[in-house]
Amino acid sequence: MNCILLPASDIAPPYAQINSPVQIEHINKVLKLQVGATLKIGQLGGNLGTAVIDDMSPSNIQLREVQLDTPSPAKLEVTVILALPRPKVLRRLIMDMTALGVCHIILINSYRTQKSYWQSPLLMRLDEFVLEGLQQGVDTIAPRISLQKRFKPFVEDQLPSLITHDAIIAHPYSDLAFSQYLQQLPVESISSARVQRPDVVCIGAEGGWVDYEIELLCKQGCKAVNIGPRILRTEAAVNVILGQWLI
Amino acid sequence: MNCILLPASDIAPPYAQINSPVQIEHINKVLKLQVGATLKIGQLGGNLGTAVIDDMSPSNIQLREVQLDTPSPAKLEVTVILALPRPKVLRRLIMDMTALGVCHIILINSYRTQKSYWQSPLLMRLDEFVLEGLQQGVDTIAPRISLQKRFKPFVEDQLPSLITHDAIIAHPYSDLAFSQYLQQLPVESISSARVQRPDVVCIGAEGGWVDYEIELLCKQGCKAVNIGPRILRTEAAVNVILGQWLI
Repeated sequence: MNCILLPASDIAPPYAQINSPVQIEHINKVLKLQVGATLKIGQLGGNLGTAVIDDMSPSNIQLREVQLDTPSPAKLEVTVILALPRPKVLRRLIMDMTALGVCHIILINSYRTQKSYWQSPLLMRLDEFVLEGLQQGVDTIAPRISLQKRFKPFVEDQLPSLITHDAIIAHPYSDLAFSQYLQQLPVESISSARVQRPDVVCIGAEGGWVDYEIELLCKQGCKAVNIGPRILRTEAAVNVILGQWLI
Repeated sequence: MNCILLPASDIAPPYAQINSPVQIEHINKVLKLQVGATLKIGQLGGNLGTAVIDDMSPSNIQLREVQLDTPSPAKLEVTVILALPRPKVLRRLIMDMTALGVCHIILINSYRTQKSYWQSPLLMRLDEFVLEGLQQGVDTIAPRISLQKRFKPFVEDQLPSLITHDAIIAHPYSDLAFSQYLQQLPVESISSARVQRPDVVCIGAEGGWVDYEIELLCKQGCKAVNIGPRILRTEAAVNVILGQWLI
């Protein structure tokens, strides 16, 4: 946690309180802060700032001198369409995409998504993973997360309205290299080159997309791109691709 | 596994054999291949190619028509100096850096590396994680991995000889943005801009480097750079930073 996010209901400047056992444990055991220490905090959906620890009990931390005057960082204006991954990696993927500032995450069914993944109890804990990602990435604005259990109807009926600019599919076996794709995007000057980007990025589960899925996505205007001869884990690919627009 | 890597001792073209229980299980349960199927293989330290499954038993797979005529992809000519992380994330970090093609990985002690991390039995299994990374990233050449338990002597005595071009430290609180740093690098033309990169990248453990470590690294010529206001998990930062030069 690089900041402690609190709901608006626990903030009444210049005071606030922390009730979450996870946050209290982090403050005690990881940050090792005591009364009088300054803490980085944020209001969920609001600003970032600082507060001073006024009082601590095992179940509650009282804060004073609450200052919330820093806007959260700009979001990455991208919709990520992610084939629902193994539950084991779902938490880290949601955390990472949230920390990277992704606006909208769509978890979608795919040929290589096992049916059991949709029954995972972790799908009920997405808000928790988002909170972890926000506190990691020092952001206060949660991404929107939607679940789409039916691939074809989603791609045919809903995907086109999400693409206002351009859409790509991460596909190790595409002939079009990501760098070539970027060169095709309209660029006005070198300094603005980094701003040019697709607004939809489709990333497969382990094993990637099958040909039928690639075809259906391409029919709606997506372009399949490879990121070189090396094939990365889904988590690594998400960070490599989205990270391009972070730095 | 996007390819099955075999030691030279198990390859005698046009034949080869697979004895590793992990690889045999992957071929049976994930790839679901049978006799007659073509398999992507590679020789550890050698070329990549294909082979046809000739015979399968629970403990051995015989291959025929072994063709190893594709060189492994170019390595990423970078030394990563990584503060030894929690054992839990060590495996994925080694896998990811290997899959990304990093040449040389130095695991180093740091203020925020707990002493117990150096006692982890996972440190005895680095070769296994490297093999996983190579089979993920479709590469055959393992990175060199060194362990450095003493930060100061390493930085003062050995680091300078590793920096032939330029070195950076990932540091969320640096004033120098990664993009500004890249612009400072000599660039001859836009098309070659991506080739310019530091040859040493220092990445901290959870909580990052402490000021003393940053100072010592900077004294040897490293530049501390931030990758924006968002602070990423070590794994995510590794992929974001190194991924820049992949695509």
